[in-house]
Amino acid sequence: MAQRDATHDPARRSWVASANAPGTDFPIQNLPLGVFSTHGAGPRCGVAIGDQILDLTAAHAAGLIGNAAVAEPSLGALMGQGRAASAALRAEVSALLSEGATPRPELLVPMATARMHLPTTVRNFSDFMASYDHCARLGVKRDPKNPLPPAFRQLPVAYHSRASSVRVSGESVIRPHGQWQHQDGSMHFGPTEAMDYELEMAVWIAGDNALGEPVTMASAPDRIFGYGLLNDWSVRDVQRWEMPPLGPFLGKSVSTSVSPWIITAEALAPFEVPAAVQDPPALPYLDSAWNRSHGGLAVRMTAAILTPRMRAEGAAPFILTDTQFAAMYWTAATMVAHHGTNGCNLLAGDLLGSGTVSGSEETARACLAEIGLTGPVVLPNGESRKWIQDGDEIIFRGRAEAPGAVSIGFGECRGVLDPAIAWPA
Amino acid sequence: MAQRDATHDPARRSWVASANAPGTDFPIQNLPLGVFSTHGAGPRCGVAIGDQILDLTAAHAAGLIGNAAVAEPSLGALMGQGRAASAALRAEVSALLSEGATPRPELLVPMATARMHLPTTVRNFSDFMASYDHCARLGVKRDPKNPLPPAFRQLPVAYHSRASSVRVSGESVIRPHGQWQHQDGSMHFGPTEAMDYELEMAVWIAGDNALGEPVTMASAPDRIFGYGLLNDWSVRDVQRWEMPPLGPFLGKSVSTSVSPWIITAEALAPFEVPAAVQDPPALPYLDSAWNRSHGGLAVRMTAAILTPRMRAEGAAPFILTDTQFAAMYWTAATMVAHHGTNGCNLLAGDLLGSGTVSGSEETARACLAEIGLTGPVVLPNGESRKWIQDGDEIIFRGRAEAPGAVSIGFGECRGVLDPAIAWPA
Repeated sequence: MAQRDATHDPARRSWVASANAPGTDFPIQNLPLGVFSTHGAGPRCGVAIGDQILDLTAAHAAGLIGNAAVAEPSLGALMGQGRAASAALRAEVSALLSEGATPRPELLVPMATARMHLPTTVRNFSDFMASYDHCARLGVKRDPKNPLPPAFRQLPVAYHSRASSVRVSGESVIRPHGQWQHQDGSMHFGPTEAMDYELEMAVWIAGDNALGEPVTMASAPDRIFGYGLLNDWSVRDVQRWEMPPLGPFLGKSVSTSVSPWIITAEALAPFEVPAAVQDPPALPYLDSAWNRSHGGLAVRMTAAILTPRMRAEGAAPFILTDTQFAAMYWTAATMVAHHGTNGCNLLAGDLLGSGTVSGSEETARACLAEIGLTGPVVLPNGESRKWIQDGDEIIFRGRAEAPGAVSIGFGECRGVLDPAIAWPA
Repeated sequence: MAQRDATHDPARRSWVASANAPGTDFPIQNLPLGVFSTHGAGPRCGVAIGDQILDLTAAHAAGLIGNAAVAEPSLGALMGQGRAASAALRAEVSALLSEGATPRPELLVPMATARMHLPTTVRNFSDFMASYDHCARLGVKRDPKNPLPPAFRQLPVAYHSRASSVRVSGESVIRPHGQWQHQDGSMHFGPTEAMDYELEMAVWIAGDNALGEPVTMASAPDRIFGYGLLNDWSVRDVQRWEMPPLGPFLGKSVSTSVSPWIITAEALAPFEVPAAVQDPPALPYLDSAWNRSHGGLAVRMTAAILTPRMRAEGAAPFILTDTQFAAMYWTAATMVAHHGTNGCNLLAGDLLGSGTVSGSEETARACLAEIGLTGPVVLPNGESRKWIQDGDEIIFRGRAEAPGAVSIGFGECRGVLDPAIAWPA
């Protein structure tokens, strides 16, 4: 749980001029954490501020930031210290960057010159399916009377997914080979013909619980280090065939892209909203007064496509999905608590995916499998898409918005689909 | 792929007397690798030989083993070097321990004084379901006409499982809490009432492939570092309810126990047997001449139970399962190749589980869910078990056996079920 404090003050401005520009993703009220490198200097921790990055390692070396964890080449050490440490860091960084403090331009690196890395080595990655509309829309096709998974209203349905294939935004994805069965029963092996995106929220875990020590709704909110955008690239033909009964496997381990900047739980305090109403009410172990009043997050999320032809034509990306994270049936806190119900040890640096963030509006369908239910998308230049084609780029953006608060952005999560390789002889 | 060489010579004996005792798990033909510690000295790599451990770190320091990877506190570095390095290490260790070499008792640690650790940090854990009999026996109950998962005969069905909860043999398991639905539709939350074991083979991965670079049947055999025993503790009431459609989650992340000694692929060369016949034949990408002739492994595996009353009575563990790994429908090589079909990057230190190693005989049912289909097990002292009870210990053993070869053992994989905790108020 995070409190609204002076770091969220809408009047606070920064001596970094670009952070005060209207509409920037990274005003001084945001201060997201990431890992970057520059020509000649390896990965190190930083804070996005306007179009600049505050080099935390340099700030620590200059004695301006106390916590030595920020001098590591990853955010893992800071995540391991738990939420109190990140809250203290936020207060220090906010003071350091505020208008009125001594400007320290020597600690800034222009974002345009930096390469971003994964915030930390992903220890474990679990992916949820927490949107009612995503499940209902796709389930109706399978079973109109019972579109939802049996347990959907009782627990946030999830599966263990693949940690090794998580990649930072910007890395391309190779169209994978796979196996599936045709309708006539014949078998097929070759490059997928049904590559999809899933627009999800990433949840990064802070702190560890010992194996056997459950996570509860009381402890869950403080296990959330922060949030990001996550593209759960999905191979629909492979997935459909392989799933029963153990769930997705190769359909989900081709690549998972995450945005590089982690928007901390502290930064999002002004955007906490009541959780979606649940019917029936959740069992007590998945319920809390805090979650009901503050478990949701007012974040608007979009997915856009940029095809090779659009790129050549100089067209802007076309928005395929425009959705609200606050509409999810299960909140991030319930995901964390459910995950730890059985004493499963959640570790600092673990990653959760929220599942496809679809809403009830037709524009809020957050993957092509849903969008395609009403036929292929027709793009402004006349191209159409049932699935992602070679060279297409998928671009996610997110923005937290609330009355009386300075809106903050999530940056981007981008990825291009590269053609399949020739299968090795 | 491993060749039979002088290290497998049945006539070879060791200057470690206990390694020459008939029936030992660890004759000089075995030489499994593990990580151990002793009072006052931290984790280091070792080789099991009779009732002793050869301290590889000490042997390296003495100039007797060339590869510095064995001086790490984990086998991860050696696994990262790939199979050529472990084959070279085996030859060196075999020469060092052979009768006729200079005895080096100062490099030995009595196994009884050592504590075993996980061989390496488990990077990713994927669990397969490769036994026809396991699937058929449990599937018949669900759908007598179509007992197998649709894709069972076309690919080794698998799911991503949880890496953080993998533990070494000997660590106890706490009965977890969980949620499920009663037949009348009412909901239940509390300690599981259906704790089970699954007797599986562990497969440890050597070397890395880059994301996007597929693993093929040609490369798969050399990606197997070695084998062990794996108890995929399963929470049946939780699992049944949570599974559709994304597969097992909390039912499988309570704990996964592995035996501490990795039997290398080299050690198992004399025990390679033809793969089980597949009908229909596997697609070409899951088939190879080598796999058909050598993909199976002649390993007998057993699971036994020791209840608190049996322990008090001084009774021996009672064997619940007695099965053969060679009967599996899919081989380890096909599991590795399938996993990497889509370019998923398998990393040194990744762990695969074979799935429950059940055979066609009634005695070869390798979990209580299968055994219980004909009613609870009655133990020799009159106790009966439908599921594992508090204080019960489950003990796995494995032994590779083949004509003309010295039989080698896997050691043990043990775990006691501890009572549930009181749910935090």
